[in-house]
Amino acid sequence: MSKAERRTKFEGVFVQIRDELVEHFAGEGMPEEAVIWFRNNLNYNVPGGKLNRGMSVVDTVEILKGRALTEDEYFKAAVLGWCVELLQAYFLEADDIMDTSITRRGQPCWYRVPEVGMIAINDSFMLEAAIYRLLKVHFRSQAYYADLLDLFHETTYQTEFGQLIDLITAPQDKVDLSKFSLERHRLIVIYKTAYYSFYLPVACAMLATHIPESYNVPTNPPSVVKPYDLARSILLPLGEYFQIQDDFLDFAGTPEQIGKIGTDIVDNKCSWVVNTAIKLASPEQRQLLDENYGRKDAKKEKKVKALFEEIGIRKVYAEYEERVVGELNKKIEEIVEVEGGLKREVFLSFLGKIYKRSK
Amino acid sequence: MSKAERRTKFEGVFVQIRDELVEHFAGEGMPEEAVIWFRNNLNYNVPGGKLNRGMSVVDTVEILKGRALTEDEYFKAAVLGWCVELLQAYFLEADDIMDTSITRRGQPCWYRVPEVGMIAINDSFMLEAAIYRLLKVHFRSQAYYADLLDLFHETTYQTEFGQLIDLITAPQDKVDLSKFSLERHRLIVIYKTAYYSFYLPVACAMLATHIPESYNVPTNPPSVVKPYDLARSILLPLGEYFQIQDDFLDFAGTPEQIGKIGTDIVDNKCSWVVNTAIKLASPEQRQLLDENYGRKDAKKEKKVKALFEEIGIRKVYAEYEERVVGELNKKIEEIVEVEGGLKREVFLSFLGKIYKRSK
Repeated sequence: MSKAERRTKFEGVFVQIRDELVEHFAGEGMPEEAVIWFRNNLNYNVPGGKLNRGMSVVDTVEILKGRALTEDEYFKAAVLGWCVELLQAYFLEADDIMDTSITRRGQPCWYRVPEVGMIAINDSFMLEAAIYRLLKVHFRSQAYYADLLDLFHETTYQTEFGQLIDLITAPQDKVDLSKFSLERHRLIVIYKTAYYSFYLPVACAMLATHIPESYNVPTNPPSVVKPYDLARSILLPLGEYFQIQDDFLDFAGTPEQIGKIGTDIVDNKCSWVVNTAIKLASPEQRQLLDENYGRKDAKKEKKVKALFEEIGIRKVYAEYEERVVGELNKKIEEIVEVEGGLKREVFLSFLGKIYKRSK
Repeated sequence: MSKAERRTKFEGVFVQIRDELVEHFAGEGMPEEAVIWFRNNLNYNVPGGKLNRGMSVVDTVEILKGRALTEDEYFKAAVLGWCVELLQAYFLEADDIMDTSITRRGQPCWYRVPEVGMIAINDSFMLEAAIYRLLKVHFRSQAYYADLLDLFHETTYQTEFGQLIDLITAPQDKVDLSKFSLERHRLIVIYKTAYYSFYLPVACAMLATHIPESYNVPTNPPSVVKPYDLARSILLPLGEYFQIQDDFLDFAGTPEQIGKIGTDIVDNKCSWVVNTAIKLASPEQRQLLDENYGRKDAKKEKKVKALFEEIGIRKVYAEYEERVVGELNKKIEEIVEVEGGLKREVFLSFLGKIYKRSK
């Protein structure tokens, strides 16, 4: 199946779960006006993204099973995938308010739709709560049900930790580069992005395929693998790499490549690029950064961009990418595969999609 | 123990769980600034209310066990109580933004604290996520763990349903009394208030005391009781009564009684009082309501108040109260008590606290 066909199939499951959620809501006796509202909230905010996170649950289940999925297996995996997408929609709907963003996925942010406004906060809550409704309907009888709930809860909390430190490190209206550092950037990225975008989909797939908490592998001497820890030890640095690449492309990617114009410099973002520049800057260069970063001023933005080039960000990035990809490949190669356990292909498939991407 | 002593003891548990949550957060490597922020979020928003909901978990566990609690039993019940209070804090922190409220519990709303602003949205998320962190730490090994999670999830979703229909029925900036009705009021109140304020604390206590899904009672002929359904069938109307009383006191209570000046009329609230007036109004009275309700204008408010008196709201309320209390007492009397099952005292204790309260 082509990528487009896989996407279409996955989107078909959205229609099913959306209708299921809306019918349950209507079945509670909610007024027609509210039913339409909830349906719009789901349609407007959940399905329009790249869907990489959601579809990676299905892909990972397929890899772990080592065969094509039955219809029921596909559906269940896709429901988990949509739960990941609902979690993301919950965060983004609220982040857009906190960041006073204007557009998202080529349309006005939900809270900017005139009749919506701050009701978007409760709407975001409902997207999160819909996750647990879906998990209850489709997974209540599974032995791993409580583990699945714990996984979503922990990931949600971690992402909120990351959002908090991002918000207080890089407020929009107060530039203070003394709060920035590559260590702070790493912490933000791991918590705000890597857990929910990379670990969560894989861990969902691992639970759905009954991968146990630990198992033995026939190394010499035999050893015990904790597969969820192992997955995390690869997927968090992988997620960090993905975000660093995103930060780099915001600076270096052309609008044709990335489908938008980068705004990290004017938005005072705690990006890998500025943090790397801070680390490498001379006192004069640092002063230029302090005076020009995070200002809504095209001339200042241009100065910062020139400084990034002067510091050699492109070369630093290329070296970082080669190093981290080498490290990740090494970790992945070291995985010992056993029946019913983790497989290298889970991680290779992620890495293959990310390495040297230009959009 | 006096009521004040019981409150002080319950507040002592807040200090413990707050420190537990903050230490976990700090232990994840979060920066000092963020640790202080989270601590402030908890201190500012969680413990300052009446604590009726949280303390009623402890009271109900005590009634169901029929004896004083051990220290460990008390602590566990109080953790559940604080989870209910955290859920309420999550809602209120966000509701205040959606309602553009100014003060809450005698201090500025959290989002109005200058350095907080819209970060309050993520802060509210963290209060909700903290519930599941606490439940995992303190209840993961219990057989009823998944039921407890389901209960919190469902109650959260129900409350958000109620908040949505309230927000679209009675927007602050657009008065349209044609959307109002006693039926709509009932739906809003049951979903937005009764589930989380009345059913949730009791159901938590029932799970913690191992009350099963169903049990037999020695009626003639013997019959099966579903205690959670039974509890719901009493606690939802009880919660509706509580809110109707609240609405009535906003109109009829003196500032000395209710500790604030009622603002439901100027705020366009979908209150029991206006809905009752709508039901009983002549066409002329209805026109007066349409022209004067929900306006930020003291003269118009005065006209609405006079109309409420003219319609005889006080008498309608008194009759409603006697009727509903009679019905509730009858339902409670019909409960057949068995060892390890529900007890009438659970509900009588709630009703006793509410009946003819004036604050």
